[in-house]
Amino acid sequence: MTGAKGPLIVIGGHEDKEGERTILKAIAEAVIGQKLIIATIASHRPEGYFEAYQQAFADLGVGSLVELYVRDREASQDESVRATFSDAGGIFFTGGDQLRISSQIGDTPIEAMVRELHERGGLVAGTSAGAAAMSDIMLVKGSSGETHRIGDLHMAPGLGLVEGAIIDQHFAERGRIGRLLGAVAQNPRIIGIGIDEDTAIVVNNRGMEVIGSGAVYIVDGSGVTRSNISEARPERTLSMHDIRLHVLSAGDIFDLESRSPQSRATQECREEAHA
Amino acid sequence: MTGAKGPLIVIGGHEDKEGERTILKAIAEAVIGQKLIIATIASHRPEGYFEAYQQAFADLGVGSLVELYVRDREASQDESVRATFSDAGGIFFTGGDQLRISSQIGDTPIEAMVRELHERGGLVAGTSAGAAAMSDIMLVKGSSGETHRIGDLHMAPGLGLVEGAIIDQHFAERGRIGRLLGAVAQNPRIIGIGIDEDTAIVVNNRGMEVIGSGAVYIVDGSGVTRSNISEARPERTLSMHDIRLHVLSAGDIFDLESRSPQSRATQECREEAHA
Repeated sequence: MTGAKGPLIVIGGHEDKEGERTILKAIAEAVIGQKLIIATIASHRPEGYFEAYQQAFADLGVGSLVELYVRDREASQDESVRATFSDAGGIFFTGGDQLRISSQIGDTPIEAMVRELHERGGLVAGTSAGAAAMSDIMLVKGSSGETHRIGDLHMAPGLGLVEGAIIDQHFAERGRIGRLLGAVAQNPRIIGIGIDEDTAIVVNNRGMEVIGSGAVYIVDGSGVTRSNISEARPERTLSMHDIRLHVLSAGDIFDLESRSPQSRATQECREEAHA
Repeated sequence: MTGAKGPLIVIGGHEDKEGERTILKAIAEAVIGQKLIIATIASHRPEGYFEAYQQAFADLGVGSLVELYVRDREASQDESVRATFSDAGGIFFTGGDQLRISSQIGDTPIEAMVRELHERGGLVAGTSAGAAAMSDIMLVKGSSGETHRIGDLHMAPGLGLVEGAIIDQHFAERGRIGRLLGAVAQNPRIIGIGIDEDTAIVVNNRGMEVIGSGAVYIVDGSGVTRSNISEARPERTLSMHDIRLHVLSAGDIFDLESRSPQSRATQECREEAHA
């Protein structure tokens, strides 16, 4: 008798906090009137993060904002944070270092509470490092602004909220297509999702929709006919044939199960045709 | 009774001039013992370019090096440069501004001589702006390091030596996948070729092989199911579904006619099987 899982909002970093605030509005709408937890765990120095979001969310209709920070793994064992989660409508992981999120809260009561929140219909959102941490596998280190060399990539297990996916952020801005291709080459079972700044995917069940001002790149390696990723020399440049790539922007919808994109206009037409 | 056309060597910029010099060696081998014209036409201030290449090519077995520079279009009409071309084995266009090449020599005797040289088996090479100018359509302006906005791209006719292709350079280094996708979206008849620095394609007939240390990205839009490129608002972010992408590195071969990649190892196996 479990209800539907809550939405995920995964943001490529630097979401607009002063103008249109399209993405923050989507977050606010998902938790309207309820409490939103701002988790600044990814940051080594979280001072100021919470205050900046307090200001950005001020007039958007969120019930209340509360900060969640843990200095270390021991603090994540503290059951007293349960009160913070009990009546929350959602949690929003801010930026910093994705390894701090996974290493500090992985397999602790906090991680369990995030999962519970998601399973009872609550929102889980993340930006930048907070976005990376939401995937099955996180990209932790790898060059930006150059073509991928085989040995130049470090991955780690993420929170696994977006299943079967690896998410990279600040995507076009930092020239990260190379490293995302390199990650997908290692196992094309994983779909690669590269999210630009001020851009997000809203994930519901197996579908996702793009919001914000930039693009989302989907790297589908299922049809790859050849790659040299398992070759020995780590300094070898990546070679990878027959990748399927989609560039999605606001209003585009992608079905993660069938790996097929469509525009919202097309979907509405189909729904009308079926009505 | 025309013989085979000469090879084209198209370089993504910043080719190694001091170490292995893989690309310069390929150029030298193609004109071995003959004269190589260094065309510094793309530069507004060509001082020093020729001397740098004199030094880089010094011990590579080129017969002689001669500089070709034209200050303006009028100078390109001067038939006296015919002597420079008559006994040359090849021409190498250095970097600068691709519009200088096309606007200064397009439809002049110099352009005709470059084409003659190519048609009688001579080498035509180009790096950076010199590479861009070799394609049918040149990318002249467009943002790097961000996702493509529909209105943010300027193209111009190039020398047309690499047919049916648009070539972009400094590719991964400047995060240019967005603008190349935007160019291909405008007409998927054109294949997009993005070349990293210190990387080149060697084009013979309809085939090309990758040399150098980086990668070459092939954007094939022939299967694109949807793009929003013809929509009105120029600030709209690109949306483009079902792109076929190949990442090629040293030793990879690509057939421009069939748009199919293969590795040299595979091709050699096939040739053996047919022998």
